[in-house]
Amino acid sequence: MGGARAGLGDVTGRPLPVVVDAMGGDRAPGEIVAGARRAADELGIEVVLVGPPDEVGDTGGLEILPASEVIGMDEDPGQSVRRKKDSSLVRAAEAVRDGRALAMVSAGNTGATMASALLRMGRLKGIIRPAIATPIPQIGSHPTVLLDAGANTECTPAMLVQFAQMGAAYSTARYGVSDPTVALLSIGEEKSKGTPLVKETHALLEATPGLRFVGNAEGRDLIKDAPDVVVTDGFTGNVALKTLEGALRFFMDTLLEVLTRNEETRKASDVLLPYLAPLAAEFDPDNTGGAVLLGVDGVCVISHGSSSAQAIVSAVRVAHDVATAGLVDRLAHAVTVA
Amino acid sequence: MGGARAGLGDVTGRPLPVVVDAMGGDRAPGEIVAGARRAADELGIEVVLVGPPDEVGDTGGLEILPASEVIGMDEDPGQSVRRKKDSSLVRAAEAVRDGRALAMVSAGNTGATMASALLRMGRLKGIIRPAIATPIPQIGSHPTVLLDAGANTECTPAMLVQFAQMGAAYSTARYGVSDPTVALLSIGEEKSKGTPLVKETHALLEATPGLRFVGNAEGRDLIKDAPDVVVTDGFTGNVALKTLEGALRFFMDTLLEVLTRNEETRKASDVLLPYLAPLAAEFDPDNTGGAVLLGVDGVCVISHGSSSAQAIVSAVRVAHDVATAGLVDRLAHAVTVA
Repeated sequence: MGGARAGLGDVTGRPLPVVVDAMGGDRAPGEIVAGARRAADELGIEVVLVGPPDEVGDTGGLEILPASEVIGMDEDPGQSVRRKKDSSLVRAAEAVRDGRALAMVSAGNTGATMASALLRMGRLKGIIRPAIATPIPQIGSHPTVLLDAGANTECTPAMLVQFAQMGAAYSTARYGVSDPTVALLSIGEEKSKGTPLVKETHALLEATPGLRFVGNAEGRDLIKDAPDVVVTDGFTGNVALKTLEGALRFFMDTLLEVLTRNEETRKASDVLLPYLAPLAAEFDPDNTGGAVLLGVDGVCVISHGSSSAQAIVSAVRVAHDVATAGLVDRLAHAVTVA
Repeated sequence: MGGARAGLGDVTGRPLPVVVDAMGGDRAPGEIVAGARRAADELGIEVVLVGPPDEVGDTGGLEILPASEVIGMDEDPGQSVRRKKDSSLVRAAEAVRDGRALAMVSAGNTGATMASALLRMGRLKGIIRPAIATPIPQIGSHPTVLLDAGANTECTPAMLVQFAQMGAAYSTARYGVSDPTVALLSIGEEKSKGTPLVKETHALLEATPGLRFVGNAEGRDLIKDAPDVVVTDGFTGNVALKTLEGALRFFMDTLLEVLTRNEETRKASDVLLPYLAPLAAEFDPDNTGGAVLLGVDGVCVISHGSSSAQAIVSAVRVAHDVATAGLVDRLAHAVTVA
């Protein structure tokens, strides 16, 4: 298991840093470096950047872990990680593996980020496959954790049971939820509804000790009065999340168009903005802190591809918080080995 | 093939009626009968109700096709249809089969509605499995057709190809779209993305003549700049649609809560309502006209379970329009027999 979990500081007693892939994301390195600097300044978290020093630019005093290669957003994940051994992503994962960093953050190629973490940190013992856990904001409450959000397009019932256990441990580590409710995404409340995978998983989850399984959830349950954890395969989870994101963006854009249509509506919008802005902020993906890859032996936070500096600040905060909350140990203890 | 397609009137030359299941839906028979009456009055469409005459109540002069039994919302679809041979749903499907009605409409048990249509009307020749086609409203354009919305939790590539062909024919019959664009729901634009089912279907769709296949669509593409037709299996389609519905309802409820929070916001809402109301109406499920079961030998419109009178008016209009547009013949000609 990764050295980062033995203690949270290095041999000198200095806190271990969060390592940020300076070259990952559509707006890298500019916004990424700006976010890393702000995270260090505003949150007081130790941050190290990784990338080619001459491309990263002014780090404002942040240390750079040198890496000569960059994996592009569209490169094949497996191939690029195997070939580009001196890439920023691979070096970031190695820093976590070697106990030189607390956690890694990247807004780059999601597949390559997963592959780097998996190949360099390794899987946690007994974990069949890691999964991506993504937060879904809930007004007036902590976010719901949906997993798998896309790491595994094909799943077995045993994998989904492990996702449920990891999701519950993550909800506790990240949001302090004790005994989180766990639901299975399906197309009806009845246990007879869904694919063979869903029906078999439902039966297994009912029989899994230590899990507060509350039955099936439907797509409409994701955004309001949602369970703490929603489990599904990576194909369905990815479709559901992108549908939700698309719908929210569409509504925001449509509302904004109405609010700015003419003089009269702009005056009305001045009145409403103080009420609408906090809601919009809650659903802003730059504030949620990104997704976490659960099941590898280290903390790996995946920020969205168009991450702004603010998104990186949020991601660094999450990486730091879940690492210091002992996420990896919690996961290792939560999962039943099939 | 159903007699209704031979001509659109009976032997006397009177137009064939749309048959409405008076007992289907959470608000049956009150709202259903009210909707049927309004459809007849306002649209000038011939409508016949089906159900137990003493339970249906005042039909306002609409004819009742008697049926002594009712299939409840939670009854097992297959069993109930086989046992309740004199139920309103079974009698409605028989009226279409026998050429005594142009089309059927029900807001009742969806599974039992499908089973009634399938068992009484039969499948169209060569169709592997019927699918539910659901409209997704698009601002400033005709709705996108998503199928399958839940009839088949498990699908084969050949089934999805037929859904694509039926969806395109339906988009033409219902919305007048010539040469509709067809996309496959997946988790990335690249043809390498998705489950084995999706990847194999992608290859088949590329090789299907007469189909304007535009590649994969993602969840976020469903609500804005969407293709005319989006094809997926019934599990994924149902999850995506319910996610979209849930997001829409959540957004409307949240906005309404802000608009009515105090005196000041209520004044602002008076200004905005004339702009927001038409948008809300476009997305009101009572106005979209319901889903259609494609692939059976007759027209069967499925309205949502909580249908109001307005929803039934819309559903009767759709049933009439697609039947008179020759939907069933179009489907029969569109599909390649595997």
